[in-house]
Amino acid sequence: MSQGITPRADDYSQWYLDVIAAADLIDSSPVRGCMVIKPHGYAVWEAIRDDLDRRFKETGHVNAYFPLFIPQSFLSKEAEHVEGFAKECAVVTHHRLRAAEGGGVEPDPTAKLEEPLIVRPTSETIIWHMYGRWIRSYRDLPLLINQWANVVRWEMRTRPFLRTAEFLWQEGHTAHATRDEAVAEAERMLDVYADFARETLAIPVVKGVKSAAERFAGADETYTIEAMMQNGWALQAGTSHFLGQNFAKAFDVTFQNAEGNDELVWATSWGVSTRLVGAAIMTHSDDTGLVLPPKVAPIQVVLTPIWRKDEEKAEVLAFCRGVEAMLKPGVRVHVDDRDSVKPGAKYFEWERKGVPLRMEVGPRDVAKASVFCARRTGGKKYPLEVGDDGAAFRARVVEELDAIQAELLAAAADKLRTRSFPIDSYDALKAQLASEPGFFEVAWCDDADNEAAIKTDCKATIRCYPLGRQQEAAGRSCFYSGRPATHLAIFARAY
Amino acid sequence: MSQGITPRADDYSQWYLDVIAAADLIDSSPVRGCMVIKPHGYAVWEAIRDDLDRRFKETGHVNAYFPLFIPQSFLSKEAEHVEGFAKECAVVTHHRLRAAEGGGVEPDPTAKLEEPLIVRPTSETIIWHMYGRWIRSYRDLPLLINQWANVVRWEMRTRPFLRTAEFLWQEGHTAHATRDEAVAEAERMLDVYADFARETLAIPVVKGVKSAAERFAGADETYTIEAMMQNGWALQAGTSHFLGQNFAKAFDVTFQNAEGNDELVWATSWGVSTRLVGAAIMTHSDDTGLVLPPKVAPIQVVLTPIWRKDEEKAEVLAFCRGVEAMLKPGVRVHVDDRDSVKPGAKYFEWERKGVPLRMEVGPRDVAKASVFCARRTGGKKYPLEVGDDGAAFRARVVEELDAIQAELLAAAADKLRTRSFPIDSYDALKAQLASEPGFFEVAWCDDADNEAAIKTDCKATIRCYPLGRQQEAAGRSCFYSGRPATHLAIFARAY
Repeated sequence: MSQGITPRADDYSQWYLDVIAAADLIDSSPVRGCMVIKPHGYAVWEAIRDDLDRRFKETGHVNAYFPLFIPQSFLSKEAEHVEGFAKECAVVTHHRLRAAEGGGVEPDPTAKLEEPLIVRPTSETIIWHMYGRWIRSYRDLPLLINQWANVVRWEMRTRPFLRTAEFLWQEGHTAHATRDEAVAEAERMLDVYADFARETLAIPVVKGVKSAAERFAGADETYTIEAMMQNGWALQAGTSHFLGQNFAKAFDVTFQNAEGNDELVWATSWGVSTRLVGAAIMTHSDDTGLVLPPKVAPIQVVLTPIWRKDEEKAEVLAFCRGVEAMLKPGVRVHVDDRDSVKPGAKYFEWERKGVPLRMEVGPRDVAKASVFCARRTGGKKYPLEVGDDGAAFRARVVEELDAIQAELLAAAADKLRTRSFPIDSYDALKAQLASEPGFFEVAWCDDADNEAAIKTDCKATIRCYPLGRQQEAAGRSCFYSGRPATHLAIFARAY
Repeated sequence: MSQGITPRADDYSQWYLDVIAAADLIDSSPVRGCMVIKPHGYAVWEAIRDDLDRRFKETGHVNAYFPLFIPQSFLSKEAEHVEGFAKECAVVTHHRLRAAEGGGVEPDPTAKLEEPLIVRPTSETIIWHMYGRWIRSYRDLPLLINQWANVVRWEMRTRPFLRTAEFLWQEGHTAHATRDEAVAEAERMLDVYADFARETLAIPVVKGVKSAAERFAGADETYTIEAMMQNGWALQAGTSHFLGQNFAKAFDVTFQNAEGNDELVWATSWGVSTRLVGAAIMTHSDDTGLVLPPKVAPIQVVLTPIWRKDEEKAEVLAFCRGVEAMLKPGVRVHVDDRDSVKPGAKYFEWERKGVPLRMEVGPRDVAKASVFCARRTGGKKYPLEVGDDGAAFRARVVEELDAIQAELLAAAADKLRTRSFPIDSYDALKAQLASEPGFFEVAWCDDADNEAAIKTDCKATIRCYPLGRQQEAAGRSCFYSGRPATHLAIFARAY
């Protein structure tokens, strides 16, 4: 509990790990690359999930659940898809253990599966197999299904929340009668993600399209939201794919149109994961520890009662319970009534756990029917009158929380703005990347070889071709090759 | 959509499958023993999950997430546990696929895991490994953690919802300083399950303790709630285990007590699964199809607009939308505005999908500002005035739904009462079991051999020793052996 937090300026990667440890969000596990999400970390994910789930349902989607396992042969049906995922799959080969000589257990050779099963790295293949059964006519379309699930990708280098072998996510899989409708769906869900990131996580993002090299394996087009971390690196925070008819072809999914003719179905898929927890941590936290946007903070307000004499304790605690009752259930509030921990240690703990608003309550506060507020960020401290009107007090506290949320967004937006650099030459990009990384906006002539060469040389990659800004490249020359530009591209170092 | 439903009296098992198919709750999958939970079925599980999650949080529990995979060696650490689960485990042996000769892919022999991983059949072992890191002192206790997750048990004979290779569930895992506290927790969670079953699923249950033969592998005591299906068979609907210090011993988990001495930690675990969806289906449905308790029905009220002339359509639909707006968000309401489906076909569809309350709205209803209600069960049909007061109308509809919920519970409780048979001899049990199965309440002398013999002979098993009724066995002789009774036992055929 008393370990220090490395300052961001000294070692940004270590700072991230320290913040997570000090906030008690996760623990490493005995299973390679898999983390345990501890209660405080999981509660952040629950808040993210509930908010997104509401947005999905408001846009007409329903949830379902498909098997964890995918028959090995399914993965090969879409050529690019298997190429993208075969190298990082957990493969189930046996369905029974037996006692081993010398103790312990081992896979029972008599229980070997005829066909190995893959633990899903993503579910396009099994879902499109099922869609092949469910879709007959244009009346069955669109099919707008989402799944909340765990997936496994055998990553060699992992980082808490950002890259783990198993992670939690949602994957939307939709089927449409026309190309236009599928493209519109992929773009709509990108907007849902961008709105969610901004409104709920207080993370401003750049919406764009991926280059061919960065596309999802099996997609015709991948849309992305890219967030900027405090070190200027990019984090891909969510993707939405227009899959064309690739999976419909692979799994032979056709529908009869209104004229009675068979057509291949059009598809999208889109997902965000526990990576978003990492994005929120990296965007808002500081050298003191975790900072969480109030909308996803498991505890939004912590009340710390302070007393010296025993006769004060009952009075102060009773007042705190009264305040708690006023704030519930609209505000997630916690009264830290531990006897064994001193107030200073409590402040320290809740600060590191990212609680947005702390209220100190001593005998003098009780006498004045007020609480003494301290915001997690900004250092503002001020008394707040409680009064008799619970609803009015709650509204006042909600205002405070909204203000904190707005401040976090403003700070992150400011960062994104000041660290977005229009760059005209590759040398300038490399120099800026070495001194103060950020998003580099360049005129670019699409070329996979040049893209790979830049990645090898300075590790910068095309994060996206930002939506709505492509006209800015018109008439310009590529910052790298000098050839006529085809895109406005954003390059950055990325997680 | 038009397949018939086998009557319960003809073939109860087929009736169950037909009800599920007609309600579009699941589909079979290409993966052995795994089902796809379709949107209408998944929404029932969501309602169950949300209700239970609230109850868990109200009783002081928090959610967390532990890895899907368990190192093979962990499973062997608790002797009875491995005995119970080794025979039905999915085993991951490779972490990569490679291109196979002749096309397709195969496990890459160069990517064989040093130690195989087990897909969790339950998480005691990995969780107690982590608890060993987290628990140091009595101040760290109790630890009250729940996990919502998928688990895999390689079942040879599967049945939708009731027994599948992969299923969704929650598993609570708690750690305590004393035996008494752990026993109290196991009993408290049994009460939570029983209250939930009664209040939310409208399923009355018998609470009891399992015999040694039916205990969870690794538990000192297993508590159970047993529900009676319409054919008189029992369904184990949830279990709560007092694990003693078995897992603390296996994973060496001790705590320092207030006096500074090390003690082994006491444990419980408890779980319910998607099996509960099957329990609800089997308890309430009829020969027409699915019946769902309003509290878990994805759609509680369906509005079916009726019009003959085009000029009526707009007026009727507008009225329906108004009613919908009045009922939302307190009531889950759906307006079936499909042009392509006739009203009669709509009634048929929603009946089979188990919607508790149907409201028909024609031009004459609009003129009277009322709707014509038909309950899914009971055949009651009656007009209901809508009026101008949305809140009042909503309250009236909620009353209707509560009445339906209460009727379902009353019918199920009546069934449980009339089909619970006090039986004095084994011959009487077998005769009754052959004619009209139910719960057989018998004086019983605990004996594992006799228990096994009865199971072999007539497939009846001890469902539980019911709580609070054990004194009824005092002074009586065992219905089977004639020896002095040790327990009051409930025998039944079970799923």
